[in-house]
Amino acid sequence: MNSDIRLSSRVVAALQEVVGVEPVQLHTPIFNGNENKYLQECIESTFVSSVGQFVDRFESDLASFTGSKFVVAVVNGTSALHVALELAGVGINDEVLVPALTFIATANAISYCGAIPHFVDSESTSLGIDADHLREYLGTHTEQLSGQCVNRSTQRVIRAIVPMHTFGHPSDIEALLAVASDFNLVLVEDAAESLGSFYHGQHTGTFGLLGTLSFNGNKTITTGGGGAILTNDEMLARRAKHLTTTAKVPHAWEFVHDEIGYNYRMPNINASLGCAQLERLPEMLLAKRNLFDRYANAFTSIPEVNLLKEPSGTRSNYWLQTLILDSSQAHLRDDILELTNSVGIMTRPAWTLMADLKPYANCPSMDLTTARDMVRRIINIPSSAHLGNTHE
Amino acid sequence: MNSDIRLSSRVVAALQEVVGVEPVQLHTPIFNGNENKYLQECIESTFVSSVGQFVDRFESDLASFTGSKFVVAVVNGTSALHVALELAGVGINDEVLVPALTFIATANAISYCGAIPHFVDSESTSLGIDADHLREYLGTHTEQLSGQCVNRSTQRVIRAIVPMHTFGHPSDIEALLAVASDFNLVLVEDAAESLGSFYHGQHTGTFGLLGTLSFNGNKTITTGGGGAILTNDEMLARRAKHLTTTAKVPHAWEFVHDEIGYNYRMPNINASLGCAQLERLPEMLLAKRNLFDRYANAFTSIPEVNLLKEPSGTRSNYWLQTLILDSSQAHLRDDILELTNSVGIMTRPAWTLMADLKPYANCPSMDLTTARDMVRRIINIPSSAHLGNTHE
Repeated sequence: MNSDIRLSSRVVAALQEVVGVEPVQLHTPIFNGNENKYLQECIESTFVSSVGQFVDRFESDLASFTGSKFVVAVVNGTSALHVALELAGVGINDEVLVPALTFIATANAISYCGAIPHFVDSESTSLGIDADHLREYLGTHTEQLSGQCVNRSTQRVIRAIVPMHTFGHPSDIEALLAVASDFNLVLVEDAAESLGSFYHGQHTGTFGLLGTLSFNGNKTITTGGGGAILTNDEMLARRAKHLTTTAKVPHAWEFVHDEIGYNYRMPNINASLGCAQLERLPEMLLAKRNLFDRYANAFTSIPEVNLLKEPSGTRSNYWLQTLILDSSQAHLRDDILELTNSVGIMTRPAWTLMADLKPYANCPSMDLTTARDMVRRIINIPSSAHLGNTHE
Repeated sequence: MNSDIRLSSRVVAALQEVVGVEPVQLHTPIFNGNENKYLQECIESTFVSSVGQFVDRFESDLASFTGSKFVVAVVNGTSALHVALELAGVGINDEVLVPALTFIATANAISYCGAIPHFVDSESTSLGIDADHLREYLGTHTEQLSGQCVNRSTQRVIRAIVPMHTFGHPSDIEALLAVASDFNLVLVEDAAESLGSFYHGQHTGTFGLLGTLSFNGNKTITTGGGGAILTNDEMLARRAKHLTTTAKVPHAWEFVHDEIGYNYRMPNINASLGCAQLERLPEMLLAKRNLFDRYANAFTSIPEVNLLKEPSGTRSNYWLQTLILDSSQAHLRDDILELTNSVGIMTRPAWTLMADLKPYANCPSMDLTTARDMVRRIINIPSSAHLGNTHE
């Protein structure tokens, strides 16, 4: 046996210490609350579509939980981001700064606005945008013209910045807000992965002009498919509701639409699931923290592998638990992925960097040294809340 | 009492003969089948999101019912049409022929492709596109250049035509296919309103290169929010599935997306509702035909008002029952809307013509004489299937 095989085997052993020997998915939802009850109530009401009491309640419950003044529920996180960017003023031929290390939905939402993603590097503590590196880059590569940040190379306006809270860990959002302010950028937060994550006590997604959440089936809580737009600005909240309901002007029977809107409202049946899920969110978050502790304990014996921990000053939802291989072990990433998946423990690497995907290969990008290094070293491991309950 | 009031009152009396005196909505769904059972099964499976057995079954059941070889379920009818148009080759600066008399989603889907709606007139029998009028218009206003239909005024390519089967009544689709063929246009069918409607025995939505359905809460059957793309072309079906699942290339763990796709897949929880609804579709269709007969009987005493009947050679789903006022009575439309709604019978006019809406006011349009005339005379009346069951 060579040492390569030994590390893979030791990782499998550490994982099995926590998750057992049965096949285990990366992330599965838990439905042990009022899910069936609320679904039935929704069916009995006959309001299953874009209007209904559960949508109103879900929005209100999310506002309470996140501290956001206004919440607009939509069909998914991608549509939330699309509308948030449009409301932030992102339009045709604008550039938008976005981490290269993200799920493709972040970049796609920019494309839907007719805008161009401009990829930026990450830092290794939170895996979010590296504010210092970005500040330096913008200082040398952009100029301010009539209060707009202009990319010297492309002559296009850089309109906005979209930090993403990777795997649930809060980015250094205050440093990023300072960069946004200094370079005249609107900040829109992609908090798709970070429901339940806080930065200095404030919920992620509530720092920017607008923020967005996702309730896809693989997220901490799910509505089947779903998302939400967060904002503290009442006018933007009204515009978000208007744009996501086909821009129909309210009237008892007339059909007047005053702009090109979207069919993006969350159906009531999905919101009924969301209301039940949200009731259990606090205990799920505790279970996920407990799972981190269990993994941390199991991996103490493997010094070549670190478990990604919430950055100091933040409280993470630990959406996806993350192994970071030592740089010297990065060449073993695929061996570990192969062996873990072959024994039924679902693991996966980070996303391919956006700048390396065919549809985005020609977009502007800063040097991505850290993001590129981290992608070689990241392995996500099973993260379902139920794995954190030691009695299971 | 003047004669105006008398007509409104007689309409209310005729409606109450059918729907009774309690408040009644325009269209409500019926959930008296396996809805709760399948929702619970879906929850128990934990697969509530974009993958699951109910999505597969719903697609397969829809294929059987419509006779379409392939069906791809998506989040709503708008997204179905957006992707169908993209697959039909509609792109930036193309024009797409579309009835001015339609719901705004048809025009919006064209806009999402970066294309421009070009509005066409309707005929009074089906309320669909007037094929003869359109043929004459295209003959004088377009020219064929390298096999493309070019608008002489704008010099833009007219790429496609999107017939819509209004209120469920099939358009004269064979005549429209002939126009499409003669002028080199791709035909994409908006069958959002016509699940269960047939033209010479063939289901609407299966005549064009692609067709689309909607399962919004106000439709004949509902999934909360939902839609589907129909096609007999296997390659297009694969492309539809790929584009609606963020264009992710299948792999056990790698994240490679080879184009800019969409987060448009129907969640399994919504599909579970759809499977139960589809089981009851045949009896709902019978009830809706029965409701037409009941209204037809009640309105025999009011010669100034006609009930829109399925065009000959077609079988309509009678999604929305429709009164057509005699031209001489068109000025009474709003009186009738006011009185019916004031006594709790929900009614509504046709949509504002697309060419009259602010966002589309500057788009190309042919003469809309018939559509404009019909809009003044159309009133939709309560149409829920349960109103067709005489025992209720």
